Amino acid sequence: MFQYAVAMHQDRPRCVIDRPVFNLPEFDREYDKRRRQFPVGEKVKKIFRCSGQRLKGLLLRHLPILSWLPKYKPKENLLCDVISGVSAGTIQVPQGMAFALLANLPPVNGLYSSFFPLIPYFFMGTAHQMVPGTFAVLSIMVGIVCLQLAPESDFSHFNATLNATVVDTERMDDVRLGISGTLACLTAIIQVLAPLTSHCFKDIGDAASSKSDTFTNLMSTQIGLGFMQFGFVAIYLSESFVRGFMTAAGLQILISVLKYIFGIKVPPYSGPLAVVYTLKDILAGLPDTNIASLVFALVSSVVLIAVKELSEHYRHRLPFPIPMEIVIVVVATAVSGPLHLPEMYHMDIVGYIPLGFPTPILPTVSQWEDMLSTAFSLAIVGYVINLAMARTLAAKHGYDVNPNQEMLALGCSNFLGSFFKIHVICCALSVTLAVDSAGGKSQFASLCVMLVVMVTMLALGAYLKPLPKSVLGALIAVNLKNTLLQLTDPYYLWKKSKWDCCVWVVTFLATFFLSLPYGVAIGVGFSILVVIFKTQFRNGSEMVQIIDTDIYKNPKMYTKVMSITGVKVVNYCSPLYFANAEIFRQRVIKKTGLDPGKLILARRKFLEKELKEKTKMEKKDKEARQRKPSSLVTMKVQTISQLELQNDFDLSDGSANTPEPPTNYVNFHCSDIELGEQAPDQGPPSPSAVTLDPQPMPFHTLILDLAGVCFIDLMGIKVLTKMNSSYALLGIKLYMANVQAQVYEELEAGGAFDDGNIARGNLFLSVHDAILFAQHTSAERRSSLKAETAGQELAFNINEANLEQVCNYSSLPIQADAAQR
Amino acid sequence: MFQYAVAMHQDRPRCVIDRPVFNLPEFDREYDKRRRQFPVGEKVKKIFRCSGQRLKGLLLRHLPILSWLPKYKPKENLLCDVISGVSAGTIQVPQGMAFALLANLPPVNGLYSSFFPLIPYFFMGTAHQMVPGTFAVLSIMVGIVCLQLAPESDFSHFNATLNATVVDTERMDDVRLGISGTLACLTAIIQVLAPLTSHCFKDIGDAASSKSDTFTNLMSTQIGLGFMQFGFVAIYLSESFVRGFMTAAGLQILISVLKYIFGIKVPPYSGPLAVVYTLKDILAGLPDTNIASLVFALVSSVVLIAVKELSEHYRHRLPFPIPMEIVIVVVATAVSGPLHLPEMYHMDIVGYIPLGFPTPILPTVSQWEDMLSTAFSLAIVGYVINLAMARTLAAKHGYDVNPNQEMLALGCSNFLGSFFKIHVICCALSVTLAVDSAGGKSQFASLCVMLVVMVTMLALGAYLKPLPKSVLGALIAVNLKNTLLQLTDPYYLWKKSKWDCCVWVVTFLATFFLSLPYGVAIGVGFSILVVIFKTQFRNGSEMVQIIDTDIYKNPKMYTKVMSITGVKVVNYCSPLYFANAEIFRQRVIKKTGLDPGKLILARRKFLEKELKEKTKMEKKDKEARQRKPSSLVTMKVQTISQLELQNDFDLSDGSANTPEPPTNYVNFHCSDIELGEQAPDQGPPSPSAVTLDPQPMPFHTLILDLAGVCFIDLMGIKVLTKMNSSYALLGIKLYMANVQAQVYEELEAGGAFDDGNIARGNLFLSVHDAILFAQHTSAERRSSLKAETAGQELAFNINEANLEQVCNYSSLPIQADAAQR
Repeated sequence: MFQYAVAMHQDRPRCVIDRPVFNLPEFDREYDKRRRQFPVGEKVKKIFRCSGQRLKGLLLRHLPILSWLPKYKPKENLLCDVISGVSAGTIQVPQGMAFALLANLPPVNGLYSSFFPLIPYFFMGTAHQMVPGTFAVLSIMVGIVCLQLAPESDFSHFNATLNATVVDTERMDDVRLGISGTLACLTAIIQVLAPLTSHCFKDIGDAASSKSDTFTNLMSTQIGLGFMQFGFVAIYLSESFVRGFMTAAGLQILISVLKYIFGIKVPPYSGPLAVVYTLKDILAGLPDTNIASLVFALVSSVVLIAVKELSEHYRHRLPFPIPMEIVIVVVATAVSGPLHLPEMYHMDIVGYIPLGFPTPILPTVSQWEDMLSTAFSLAIVGYVINLAMARTLAAKHGYDVNPNQEMLALGCSNFLGSFFKIHVICCALSVTLAVDSAGGKSQFASLCVMLVVMVTMLALGAYLKPLPKSVLGALIAVNLKNTLLQLTDPYYLWKKSKWDCCVWVVTFLATFFLSLPYGVAIGVGFSILVVIFKTQFRNGSEMVQIIDTDIYKNPKMYTKVMSITGVKVVNYCSPLYFANAEIFRQRVIKKTGLDPGKLILARRKFLEKELKEKTKMEKKDKEARQRKPSSLVTMKVQTISQLELQNDFDLSDGSANTPEPPTNYVNFHCSDIELGEQAPDQGPPSPSAVTLDPQPMPFHTLILDLAGVCFIDLMGIKVLTKMNSSYALLGIKLYMANVQAQVYEELEAGGAFDDGNIARGNLFLSVHDAILFAQHTSAERRSSLKAETAGQELAFNINEANLEQVCNYSSLPIQADAAQR
Repeated sequence: MFQYAVAMHQDRPRCVIDRPVFNLPEFDREYDKRRRQFPVGEKVKKIFRCSGQRLKGLLLRHLPILSWLPKYKPKENLLCDVISGVSAGTIQVPQGMAFALLANLPPVNGLYSSFFPLIPYFFMGTAHQMVPGTFAVLSIMVGIVCLQLAPESDFSHFNATLNATVVDTERMDDVRLGISGTLACLTAIIQVLAPLTSHCFKDIGDAASSKSDTFTNLMSTQIGLGFMQFGFVAIYLSESFVRGFMTAAGLQILISVLKYIFGIKVPPYSGPLAVVYTLKDILAGLPDTNIASLVFALVSSVVLIAVKELSEHYRHRLPFPIPMEIVIVVVATAVSGPLHLPEMYHMDIVGYIPLGFPTPILPTVSQWEDMLSTAFSLAIVGYVINLAMARTLAAKHGYDVNPNQEMLALGCSNFLGSFFKIHVICCALSVTLAVDSAGGKSQFASLCVMLVVMVTMLALGAYLKPLPKSVLGALIAVNLKNTLLQLTDPYYLWKKSKWDCCVWVVTFLATFFLSLPYGVAIGVGFSILVVIFKTQFRNGSEMVQIIDTDIYKNPKMYTKVMSITGVKVVNYCSPLYFANAEIFRQRVIKKTGLDPGKLILARRKFLEKELKEKTKMEKKDKEARQRKPSSLVTMKVQTISQLELQNDFDLSDGSANTPEPPTNYVNFHCSDIELGEQAPDQGPPSPSAVTLDPQPMPFHTLILDLAGVCFIDLMGIKVLTKMNSSYALLGIKLYMANVQAQVYEELEAGGAFDDGNIARGNLFLSVHDAILFAQHTSAERRSSLKAETAGQELAFNINEANLEQVCNYSSLPIQADAAQR
């Protein structure tokens, strides 16, 4: 029955097959297709089970510390953790203070943000080396909100004694700290709610799965992968989007620290194009540059870059990265303070840092309405950054991170922090990398970071007063190097994938020129739209047999091909759903060169005319039998003009622009003699009223290769069934090959095989099977054709009902008009 | 070389194949794959060609009247057109007036809306039987804007003589007419700009196609199908969305006409939940029902329903539908006016209708900002309805409609009308259907409709003054019958497709409870998200050979299967892109039961331990040679605990919930003796330091069946290449089968075949080819294995660079941290 041989011809195995041709029902019968069973009761029981086991699992999942702490080996890891933690802590402190500047907040806020969020993460985080902390992009987004809700003008008053406008900085900072905390709280709520919502989804999915059908089964088993494991939105962020967004954010950050570096005053802007106005003001203000600030900035940048390059070069020899940031901060403070440089040169300095823990505050819920869009953006971006870092660490060290638990941990970190006036945090990338490269193995490193920050907050902070802000600005600017290198991304992306390049550019422009939250919304929206575009821009193509094989390929790509008479093969490589169902139908029409709907209508009109003519003819015949030839000529001319009219429509609708030859509507050759010979007394046109020669049809079977159709929705099914019935009216068989298992299920559920739509027997395992079957049946039919009435299969009804079924192709059902009828 | 036989075994053809096994490069070489050439110069020339031909084409395309008018046959069609047009006109008039009520505008606005927009459409429309006019759903959306921008309270003042608040209705109507015109103008601009934009897109695409690469080629040839032919948004509306939206809109319309039917005063609401408040007020106001209004409404509805049912029953015998609407209006007016019923019963009547043409106005551009979202919704919904009707007509009569030209025509209709105080129109469904069923053949019918409306506007309108509004309300309510029947949609949809049902329900709820523009936004967004969900919820499945065939199927579905030793086949049926690339990787890991990244890490740790142990052993060896056995035991225990640690992580991340057995990390059996025999003085671990027995790997080849992958983006390519390199490190070959032609191009452009990533030779034409090849090479290798160094292929480096490449699986590149580093 089946030969299986690996012949060693030309050092290449051979593929030898000898099996019967299968269509799907025969195949399923022969090879015992199973109906998959889903145990119902068990699943229901499982949901409502509330055992100690389950509670333990829940605890272990949400407090990962319970699983890693008992296994912690202090002897091996504690030393590494402490060293890496302390050295990373010295990066965390200046970075936090610098990013507080970006957020338009007092530097002490950076210390708070670098301390409080670490506490919940210590218990809840799944990434061992991760240190939560400030992140420049988030900080600048917080900064915009602070500016909008507490603009400087609200706190300035004219001081008559000084004869100048004075800003009550202290009160402004206080208000802004409140806003920052409120925003952090809202962001935290979004971040906490997201995983909880997906939990609920999962439970619903589980409960629904007791119904054991495809959808709910998918929901229940896959929700785990979809919602649960990947959070609910972050998954929709393509790399091109993230890189475009990060680059634009980096540029915005650079522009916003320039004022600190040059020591010039620039009025704050917010809203679209703010960055352009700021840049303009900075350029205009350059003549007023504070030279001392600039010198501090330049010196620190040069030193920092040099040391970074060196330590990069010798990184294999260093036990842990040099915490150069803290060295620069200490040196700058030591130079600036004792020499009284700030007073001499009017430099902008960090100023007084209040020691001790902050008094907890409550969020001002009424402000949430104005913050909602920013909070969403913060939640998404923070989560994405966090997850990316966690995944990288996990892959490097071979553990798993649970994305949802990460989001929960992040949310809790922000939530606790929000009462202590932090601004929104995610993972502190450079700190985390420092911990990792210094050999940190667990969250104890993060505990040490906390200790370092606490010491600064409680004692050392006071000494940082004379630190020039320009030094912090320089620290930020230097760290932007890699981001700005990403500006060359579009060049590489364009070569690799034009669509990804489009996503990058759109995201970049929207983020840079509008604002960061807009950038997130537009970028995410556009990258999803691109997916839809891609499914629309798939070229269906004709396929022909490659000579001497069972392989079918596009004849435009291969030369040694042969087409099979009477059979057309068209493949389409895209899901079939509402956005491209109509496109699919038109591709098939174009590739086969035959529009069944129009052909049927043309036939019908032709038949109507024939009938009229015949009645006329009969009359005339009775009147004068000698005038017959001339009337036949008139009739023919009319038929042709009918077809011409159709072609005119084709030309007028723009399809004339396409290079391919216009679809030809097959003329059917009813020979004059045949018509003349017809019995004219049959009354209403019966199916066999006009026998049509089967030859003029360019093909008797159309095979759709649906291998690339990975899902189908109701509109796709509708188009397929309509195509099936209209081709059937023309006597053309519609076969489908390579239907994916899941698509088959969707077809079945969607009723494609119901009530005389598509016959299951027209589905084949491969194009080759379908072709062999088609040739077989066509040969059979040809031999028996003469015996049967030729018109039986090929004739069609003028019956109204039948025609409506065929004509109603429009993407919307006629019922849509019900709204107004 | 190839046998092609159709044996008549069991009345079924047989599939007999004997051909060499191909991988893609071999196949392309043997069968002469062509590089497709795109003629560059010609295309550029074509774009800049500005011939008379082109101008003529442009004119014909945008003014379809030029093509149909010369061919018009007055003798045959004019009579039909006039009869159908006049009878349809009598529907257009009362319908326009009724829908003006929905729009919170004076009835005369309905007449304007039914007249002016028809003029541009006469010249520009591509659907022959289409009559533009008012549409209930659009009217109610306009009504909300009118309410918001010109609330009644703005025009009411306290009149001391009447001791009551009096509303200056005349001035209010005037302002609202201005708002309505302004809104129509904005909608028109959106509708006109959309096709023009897509024109530009097409031209850019054409110009770019001179570069002759895949993307631009796709853009240029497919933009015609994507943007050009289908408008730019309407295509994203699934049928479920439209039906859900229409049903909710119908319910809202019903609720908003109840006040006219019952003749009660209800304060106007707008915004979310407006419909709930309105309903509450109507229920509360029921005791104050105006009996006369209610009687008029009930009588007209009963008559209308009865006549509609009868005419539906006898529709084949009627030459044209009975214009019952106008009969009811005339009778109601004739009863109400002479008997002075309105004055007697304080009924709400249509009132004075100003005769003559309105004076043109200019749109108040400053109001556009508030109208933007509604205008977008109006443009989309109007276009969708129009296109659906046009397609239905076109399919029925066998001509083509050009969707873009339709949108342009609709835009121009609204644009002209906007100067004459119309509210936004699209196609007047019942009027169009009346024209069609009465045998109208061309836009001349629409001209007759225009004449009827004009006569009413110029002369007859004055007589309609005493017509009760409740009659108009009843006309609207009766026409909603079919829409409300759609409330049963979810029941049928749920059986056919759960996702489509979800779209319906979400759209319905959002539209009904929030508002119509929100409903459009949420519905469209959700139906696009569903597409993304669908690609995420695809189950990759393992595949095994069906006994005695070249067919591979899911072993869960078929019983007569055999798995091939050493080869795993996994299929995945979804595009591979940013939203599911990671899911895909995890599916493969789950289905193969082997996580290459973790295995490599485990190996590496194992090796490090081995090395340490060995160094220790050496020392101990030197110290005391007799203690060797005990040290080996320790080592083994440690290895197992390492693997246990991994499993613990797997359990804690929630994957324990899934029913399938947890992925097992293959233990590799380094026999004690082998290790003992190793030369311990090799210094740093070289690739051949530890020879690994190839047997423990559960498979030597992994075949991915990518037939269902219909497109791939850069993140998909990245995942594939990373998988390839990590499997390669483990000595597992990754083959891909059934790669679609377009996916192959994307892989090529994306650099998947560059610099030592995936070898082209690993791509096969079918799963069977790949398996035969794998068995062939594995047999070859096994025979030559003993001769070569066994470790060469299977060994791996502890080299850092190599490892980072493997570990860096995370969806975001490590460069993302550049923003902060």
